[in-house]
Parts: sequence; C-alpha cells; structure tokens
Amino acid sequence: MKIQHQISGKSYKASGFIGRYQKLVTETVIPWQEKILMDEAPDTEKSHAIANFINAGKVLRGEDPGDGFYGMVFQDSDVAKWIESASFSLMNTPDPELEKELDKVIGYIAAAQDEDGYLNTYFTVKDRDKRWTNLHEAHELYVAGHMIEAACAHFEATGKRTLLDVMIKNTEHIYDHFIVKGNPGVPGHPEIELALMKLYRLTGNARTLELCRHFLNERGTDPELFIKEADNRSWSVWGSNPRDEGDLLYRQCDRPLRELEAATGHAVRAVYLYAGMADYASEAGDDELLSACRRLWDSIVRRRMYVTGGIGSTVQGEAFTVDYDLPPDTAYAETCASVGLIFFASRMLENEIKGVYADIMERAFYNTVLAGMALDGKRFFYVNPLEVDPGISGVAVTHKHDLPVRPKWYQCACCPPNVARLIESFGRYAYGENEDMAYCHLIAPGEVQFDNGLTLTCTTDYPHGMDIRYSVKGTGKLAIRVPGWSSSFGLLKDGVKISPELDNGYICIDVEGSSEIELKLDGTPHFVYASNRIPRAAGMVSLRRGPLVYCFEGVDNGSVKALCIDRKSGIDITSVPGLPDVDALAVKAWREAENDELYSDDAPVTEPVEAVAIPYYMWGNRGETEMRVWMR
Amino acid sequence: MKIQHQISGKSYKASGFIGRYQKLVTETVIPWQEKILMDEAPDTEKSHAIANFINAGKVLRGEDPGDGFYGMVFQDSDVAKWIESASFSLMNTPDPELEKELDKVIGYIAAAQDEDGYLNTYFTVKDRDKRWTNLHEAHELYVAGHMIEAACAHFEATGKRTLLDVMIKNTEHIYDHFIVKGNPGVPGHPEIELALMKLYRLTGNARTLELCRHFLNERGTDPELFIKEADNRSWSVWGSNPRDEGDLLYRQCDRPLRELEAATGHAVRAVYLYAGMADYASEAGDDELLSACRRLWDSIVRRRMYVTGGIGSTVQGEAFTVDYDLPPDTAYAETCASVGLIFFASRMLENEIKGVYADIMERAFYNTVLAGMALDGKRFFYVNPLEVDPGISGVAVTHKHDLPVRPKWYQCACCPPNVARLIESFGRYAYGENEDMAYCHLIAPGEVQFDNGLTLTCTTDYPHGMDIRYSVKGTGKLAIRVPGWSSSFGLLKDGVKISPELDNGYICIDVEGSSEIELKLDGTPHFVYASNRIPRAAGMVSLRRGPLVYCFEGVDNGSVKALCIDRKSGIDITSVPGLPDVDALAVKAWREAENDELYSDDAPVTEPVEAVAIPYYMWGNRGETEMRVWMR
Repeated sequence: MKIQHQISGKSYKASGFIGRYQKLVTETVIPWQEKILMDEAPDTEKSHAIANFINAGKVLRGEDPGDGFYGMVFQDSDVAKWIESASFSLMNTPDPELEKELDKVIGYIAAAQDEDGYLNTYFTVKDRDKRWTNLHEAHELYVAGHMIEAACAHFEATGKRTLLDVMIKNTEHIYDHFIVKGNPGVPGHPEIELALMKLYRLTGNARTLELCRHFLNERGTDPELFIKEADNRSWSVWGSNPRDEGDLLYRQCDRPLRELEAATGHAVRAVYLYAGMADYASEAGDDELLSACRRLWDSIVRRRMYVTGGIGSTVQGEAFTVDYDLPPDTAYAETCASVGLIFFASRMLENEIKGVYADIMERAFYNTVLAGMALDGKRFFYVNPLEVDPGISGVAVTHKHDLPVRPKWYQCACCPPNVARLIESFGRYAYGENEDMAYCHLIAPGEVQFDNGLTLTCTTDYPHGMDIRYSVKGTGKLAIRVPGWSSSFGLLKDGVKISPELDNGYICIDVEGSSEIELKLDGTPHFVYASNRIPRAAGMVSLRRGPLVYCFEGVDNGSVKALCIDRKSGIDITSVPGLPDVDALAVKAWREAENDELYSDDAPVTEPVEAVAIPYYMWGNRGETEMRVWMR
Repeated sequence: MKIQHQISGKSYKASGFIGRYQKLVTETVIPWQEKILMDEAPDTEKSHAIANFINAGKVLRGEDPGDGFYGMVFQDSDVAKWIESASFSLMNTPDPELEKELDKVIGYIAAAQDEDGYLNTYFTVKDRDKRWTNLHEAHELYVAGHMIEAACAHFEATGKRTLLDVMIKNTEHIYDHFIVKGNPGVPGHPEIELALMKLYRLTGNARTLELCRHFLNERGTDPELFIKEADNRSWSVWGSNPRDEGDLLYRQCDRPLRELEAATGHAVRAVYLYAGMADYASEAGDDELLSACRRLWDSIVRRRMYVTGGIGSTVQGEAFTVDYDLPPDTAYAETCASVGLIFFASRMLENEIKGVYADIMERAFYNTVLAGMALDGKRFFYVNPLEVDPGISGVAVTHKHDLPVRPKWYQCACCPPNVARLIESFGRYAYGENEDMAYCHLIAPGEVQFDNGLTLTCTTDYPHGMDIRYSVKGTGKLAIRVPGWSSSFGLLKDGVKISPELDNGYICIDVEGSSEIELKLDGTPHFVYASNRIPRAAGMVSLRRGPLVYCFEGVDNGSVKALCIDRKSGIDITSVPGLPDVDALAVKAWREAENDELYSDDAPVTEPVEAVAIPYYMWGNRGETEMRVWMR
C-alpha cells in the first residue's frame, strides 16, 4: 500500500480565508499566549509555565529553585503547544524575533532536562523520586508527547536540532524505562503515540516506532494496571481513584485496542489515541488495528457526533456517552476534541483515500473548531453547545459549562493553543501526496509545492464562495476531493468541461505543463434533517450552506424559541448587522406570540416572519443572546 | 380570618378511584413495607430499621446492643412513615392485627427513648455524645418530625397516647435544647416545622408553636451556622462540606425565610419547609411570612414546575434550578417533591381559598405522585421523567437516574411510604371546613362527615369520568371547587340547573335537608401548549383530559420520536392493550420513515398514522419502552 502523507510544513502558503485566520493567529493569538506563559499578560491568572522550566534548571544545577513549581501537573504542555504553534507560524511567516524567543525558551527547556534524559518540571522541581509512579494521573507521557510534537515542528521550521535533540534523548529515556527496564505502564492520557509517529517519520529510529507499538499493544491488557500502580504509592495529584466505576472506560483502558467497538470515555483522550492507532496502523500495515480504527470512526461519525463535528456530548468526564445521545444545550463538544477528530481523520486518510474523512475534517474545522475562537482571536470556547438560552446556559447547575459568551484565554489553557496550531498547520491537512498522486483533501486557498514537483495555486472565497480555481504547473496526477455535501458539481480543465469519474469522493486529473482547473460546487443552501434516532434532534431542521452549519441568534431574531421554520420555504441569502461580508440565510417562519402562561390549552397566536441564520462558527460574537442550531 | 382546615382522618370513607388506590396501599404496600422494616422480605436489601430501635433500647438498659445500628442516618424515619401510613389505613380500614403490630413497634420506640426525651437510634446506639452536634447532615430534627407526624396519626386512628406521649416528651427535649438552653441550630433537612404545627393543633401547647416559630425565624439568619458547627466537631456522616458553593441554597439557608423570592435548592426540603411556613403563617396570622409563601408558590407553579406537577428538575442536589429550565428527559421530579408540593398547596388553602392551590394538588397527585407507583403497587419511581429513550435513559451518564421501568422498593426507601401516606389520607386534602363553610377541594368519591354536621356522598368515576354527584344531608354552606382546567361546567341542584357565581374557582351552595348536586365537567380532550420560554418544551404539545396529562409510549406507537402530531386533528377516545378500562386518546399524526443517516439533506418520508396516548400515571407498566409527554 502506498501511504498517502501530509505535505511538509513549508509547502503551503495560505491566502484567502485560511490566510486571514493564520494572520490572526500569528499576530494575535501566539504573542498573547507568549505573554501568558511569561506571566507578562495583564489581568490574567498566573501561568508560571516558563518559570517552571527555569526553576527546574536551577534544581538540576543544585541552585535554589526560587518560587518552585506552580500550575497544573501538565503545565509544561502549554509551553510545548506554544512552541509548536510558533514554529508552524514561522513556516508561514518568518519572524526573527519570534525565532529568538523560541531559542531562549528552548534553552530553558534544555537546561531543565535531567542527565538521564528525563524532562518534566513538575517532578523535577517538586520530587524527583516520584517520577513515573503515577501514569494514571500525572500526564508525564502526555507532556512528553506534546514536547516531541513541538520539537518536530521547531526542527522543520528552523532546521535547528536544539529541541529535537532534547526530545530524542527524552524518548530514549522513556524507551529505556518502559522497554529496556520493562516497567509496566501506559499513558493515563494518550497523546505520545501520535507524537512518536511524527518523530519516527523524522528520524527513522526503529526504537521510536517500537515504543509507540508498545504503548498501543499494552493498553487495555491489564485492567488492574492503574490500581496496582496506585497501591504502590502513597500520593495522588488530585485524588482520582482507579477503582472508580468508569475509570477504565474514561481512559480507553477497558480492553485491548484491537477489540474496541465504540468510541468511549474522555473524548480528547479517545481521538488522540485513535489518531495514534491509525498512524501506526498505516506505517506498520497493521490491518487488525486499522479495522478497529474503522469501527471507532463509524461509531463516532454515524452515531456519536454533532452536526457541527463536535464530539463528547457530556461534561461528566468530558466524554462520549451512548449512541444518539446528542443534547444540543448541555453539549460538551470540546474544541480540542474536534481538533483531535481532525487528527484522527487525517490519519485515516493515510490509510485509505476516502472523501468521508475529509468531509468530517471540514465539518469539525469550519464549525466547532472555528467557533472555539472569537472572530477577533481574543476569546475562546472550550465547550461548543448547539443551543444557548441566556438565564439557563452557564447558570443552571446542569448548564454551568455551556457559556453563552467566550471567556478570556486564561480560564482555559488547552483549547486555544490547539486551535492555533491547527490553523497554522492547515496545509498539512488540506494537501497530501504519495509517490503516485498529489491530493487536494480540503479546499485551501494559497500556493502549494508538492514533493513530486507539481505546484498549485488555489484561488477561492471558500467556505463562503463555492468556486475554486486551481492553477497547476508540472506533470503528474492530481486528485481533488469533491465535498460529500455537494450533490452536484461542475469541472472545467483549461476552460473545457470534463467529467472524470468520482472515486470515493475524489476526481483524478492528469496534468501536464500548465493547467487551469475550475471546480464549481453546489452552493445552494439546504435544510438538514437529523436522524429520528437522536432524541434531541428528531424532527428538527438545521441549515447549511457548503460546509457551514448555520444557527439562529436572538440578536437577529428576537426569541428564537418562539420560531417555527417553514420547511417548504425557499432559503435566501441575506446580511445581518455586525457581521459584514457574511452570507446569512433567510427563511420563512412562524413566530408565536410570547406565551407567559407555563401551560395552556390555547395554541399560541402565530404570525409569519422572516428568520435569519448565520454561520455557526460566528455565533456569540455580538454579546449574550439566544442561539439554536436545531429548529422546529 | 377564619382558617380553613382539613377534615379529620376518620371523616372520609373513600370509594371509586381513591378507594381502589387506598385498598392497594392497605393490602399491598403497607404489609410489604412492614416486612422490609422487619427484615422479613425476601430478596431485598437489609433495612434493620426496627432492629435499630430494639438495639437502642438495649443500649439504654445497659444491655449488649446486639448487631448495633445499620442503615442511613435517617433510617428511623422509615419506621415513622410506615406507622403514619398504617395509622391512616386503620382510619380507613380497621384491622386489629395491624393495630397490634403498631403497638409492638411503638413499644420498641418507647423503649429506645432516653430518659431526657431524646430519641434517635443512630446516635443512641452509635455515640450518645454526638447528639445535636451535626444538624447539617444528621437529620435528627427531620426524623423527629416524621415521628411526630406518625404519633399524631396513630393517636387519631386509635386514641392511644403511647407514641404521642413519647413524641410530646421528645418535643419538650428539643424545646429545652434549642429554646431553654439556647443552643444554636436549624434543621439541615426541614420537616419538623409542619410536624410541630400538627402537634400544636392536637395539643394546643404554646411551646410547640414557639419551637416551630423559632426554627422558621432562625433559618437563614446566620450563613456561618453550619460552618461553625462543622468546625466544632471532628466527624461527618458523609463528608458534606458546609463551605461548598450552593450548600446554603441547597438547604434554603441563604437568607431569612421572609426574604425568599424563588424556590431553590433540594426540592423536597423546599416544599416541606414552605408547607411549614404556610402552616405557621395561617395559625399565627403572619402576613409577612405568608407573602413569602405566595412568592414561592408563584415561583414554582409559574416558572419551575413540569406539566405533570413534578418539581426539582435536576438530579444534582435533587433540586430546583432556574426559571423555565424543565428538561423532560433528564428530569428529576422526585415523587416525594410532588407529595410535598401537595402539602404546601393544602397549607396555602388554609390561608386563602383559591382554586389554583387545589388545581396544582390535582396536577401533582394524578400525574407525578400516581406515576411514582406501579399499577400493582409493587414497584416505585423516585424520579419521574417526561421522556424516556431506551438505550439512553438509565444508561447515559447524564440519564442514569431516569429509569425506564420502576425499580423494586428496596432501592428507594423514601418515596413509596410518602405515596402510601398521601393516598391513605387523601380525604384531608380533598375536604376541609371552617366555621362558615364545608369545602370540596378535590373530587374524591366516598362519604364525608363534616364537623358542622353536613354529610356528603360523592359518586363519580373521576378522574376518568367527568360527572360528579354529591348527595348532601344537613343544613349549611357548601363550597365546591370547579377545576381550573374545566373551561365550562354544568351544575344541577335537585335536578334544576343553577348558575352560582364562581369565586376563586369555587361555587358556594346553601344546602338544607337533603340535596342532590350534580357537577358536569368538561371532559373534552385538549392539546396543551407550553410557554415558549421553556427551551425544552417551546412549540411542543402534550395532551390532557381532565386533570390527567397523557403520554405516548413506544409499545402503542412504535418509534415515538418519529411521530409529529397533527394539531388540527380531533382527539378521539380509544383503548390500548394491556391497560383495560382506561380511556386512551387517539390523534392524527405523521410518521417519519426510520432515518439511520445521522444528518441528511433529504427530508424524511412521512405517512399519516394514528398516534395513541395513555394517562401519564400509567406509563412504564408494560415493560421498557419509549415514552414522551411533549410531542412535536
């Protein structure tokens, strides 16, 4: 099998919609996060993440550790994600000042690495004897995974081996601990698996692949693993009990990975793990593991995913629940989980070229992931409900997590950098290749340089415009995905209509010299109907245009709950105040008169009105207001 | 003001619907509970509640306490509620064997009372030094309250002062502790307030009224009360922390009771407390307290109550949340809370004769309370959702509490006896009087003897039949409530149509000698519409006939989620298999074809069908199946 892989980081220069988002991240998000990590941001909670590395270095040099360690047990990962985002940003937008900042921070990290390769400021500062005794809670392997990813990105961006060598040494230390010395254990929070696959592909070191395989093979084989571990120590990070009902499921440790049937447990853990499984399966040709990945994929996208690409429907354990349990108002649908779903999808594409994987990447990206960040890049959602009701959302005990407006960064350190690194590395998910073919998985405006020599310029207003123009130079085969939602499409090559067969959602075109390809997608707005197996969406409609799911906000409509959509209505394109340059959608609806009596025999009086919907990713940018995706 | 009060327990002999339910409780529920308390029921968890009293007696006599104490800290209250139910049953159905059993159990209780009047087996067996040191958690006053209620009922049923004297002595002990000695404290779980009012009305002892007033006046005045208490002891029952956010609200201790604006916290605690407040307000003529009661009443019935009369919409704290937050599927709506709402309503009726109080009593009784018990009296719901989806309800982590079928008694010791005592004492809520007037608040078939000399025989198939015949003997004024849901009604006196004015939902008739009064209510089935302020019911319809809310079950309809009701349809009366003699309702509907695709641009194909609904109180009696009250 010829594995399809992502293009390298410098091969895509974004423009258009993606370019604007990358600019926002480069100019707003990354500098702001740096300030936070340095404890230089005004009016934010203390991060101390850089200081932790500085203090760990002092400990190793036998100096006074200053103000010691502060923060979450996984505080180091904030630095790792920032380095990764900043490195991706450098590939898109060179910036010597930022590169210098990275050098400085990496210097602190290198100085915080123990002689044997160990690297984790929590344990190095607080208690070096406790290393590796609490995989259940202490996130050591999770943090290592993020730092490995950061190292790979930094090397790719700068060619500098500073952080890469640190993390190669750290990986050798981990190999020594788990493989050579044979200490039992798997990550309490998966992440390192996909990171090891990145490192392996960079270095080709067989031990790195072996370590990844080891963690995958061991996971779920010993249901007593974390219980034994807990019984062997007298401390805990936050009192989690491995004997708790659901603990194994929460961590995807209830059975060997090859036997998994359904997506369960903490959603971010789950999709990070599944991405690593798919990654390893494609590299190793492990069909049994790949079959499990396919089952897990189906479990998510056929039964456990919101129409917005959100996953993990409950706040309790930030987790998957059961099939079709997809409440819009109490949704968790963490931004990070949708980022992870994109990771999983892109790894499945390595194994098999099927448009559905890219369709889900789009669904998650253009809806939940982008909704995770305010349009000005300054505020972020962790949680992405499909319905908010001011007075209930964020207030009622069952809805505390579903905030009606985005909070500032400092309240959530995990999702913003995940959005940042995904946006800055968007080209990797959009374009790929193998030795036979160059692939356009997602519609990403900008310039692409494939390893096989093809170059491509994509021009489009997507996701708002539906015409895509590819100017291709060079000779080879180009596979362009036609989104699954586009029920029809037009294709021109050098101005001439062509009709290549659609193969698993892709059209394949032979190009030679200089070719102009135009793809015209179906931009007709549609009503979307949910399966009547979903209790909370059965019989409801939502709206979409292209990959964008729409929602109705109170600021445009008054009481959204009082609206009933006329499904026989045409859907017109319109505009709304406060969101210029965006195609809003207008439909006919009936508005019920305000009905204060709690229960009444009298049907409410209705009047015909026009209801207006905006793209979901833009919701909550105009103050606190009602919002609904699913309408009656 | 002339206080209207409940008739005495022996003044009503039920027949018809109420008679059949009383028979079920007398013949099935009470004997079964007795077996449980005696640890003689097969296949049930240990109760040990009677044994606790026996062992406490041994402790007091200096004997070996045998197997000590077992069970919840409020285990004694199970015995109290059983005595109360059994006493009510004796008033309806004399039974010398049962009376003898009561004598025996009361003997154990009397022997478990300390010399100073203290009575609580948990503390007497486990640690007498810890008495009164944990009002926050340990339910001593709650248990005392239930035992006072039991004592009043037992005295009324048998004329025996055995338990009454025990509880008078116990009340004196409590008075001494809190009033004479001035120890600070209010009940962590209100209940004793309404019990003290019962005892006061029986004995006329001013100290009993004073004790009730003390608890009401003290409540909410010191937000540090339970914190100080906790800081003064080194033990806890189950680790509750009075410093937890929401602890004060949970216990209705966040402000003085006269300042309360909205129904908050644990719903059973709330309505027990509000009932005690209303009771005291009417007795003492405390208008400020009564105003608070009216505000709390409005808060519940105008903004925080299910159409079924269920209250307390979240499992988290079994509590009220915020206005209009009434999810049907994750509802808590505890059976006991609706019983307590009836207590509160009946006390409000003492203060002011308004039909709305009785309307809510009916709504709660004929829907949530009766749904709390299986038709065979052998299984019980704690939690009364308005929607169940097999595979999600009782399974998903957010729906674990919403069971699709009633569990056996032993899993829940609080709701079944509450249903039992309410049914056995139904006449008290149905009929009342003051010196001017005899009142028919609820429609209750049977014979009634008013203190003022009027006797009345009520004949009806209500709540299934809508014709009510009252045969009245004697001379006086009779006020008959016309249910608020009956948009029109007919009234005949001695065969002649009369049209007295409706005053706050009551008609007043002068009777003399022997009168036949016929009331014909409007039995037309209706669609019911929810306020569009309720996110989870806006735009939906439910069905009702008379006081009965209806629901759609899968066993009659196939997939209920796939049904859309035709609101222009007539509503026909029909029958369903497995529930003989019950008027089911049939409406026209559209059924969507099963729609497996999670999200689709294609509207599901629909076909016209007939959909069938049954009274909500009968749901879940034919196996595990889908159920919905609110339909699109």
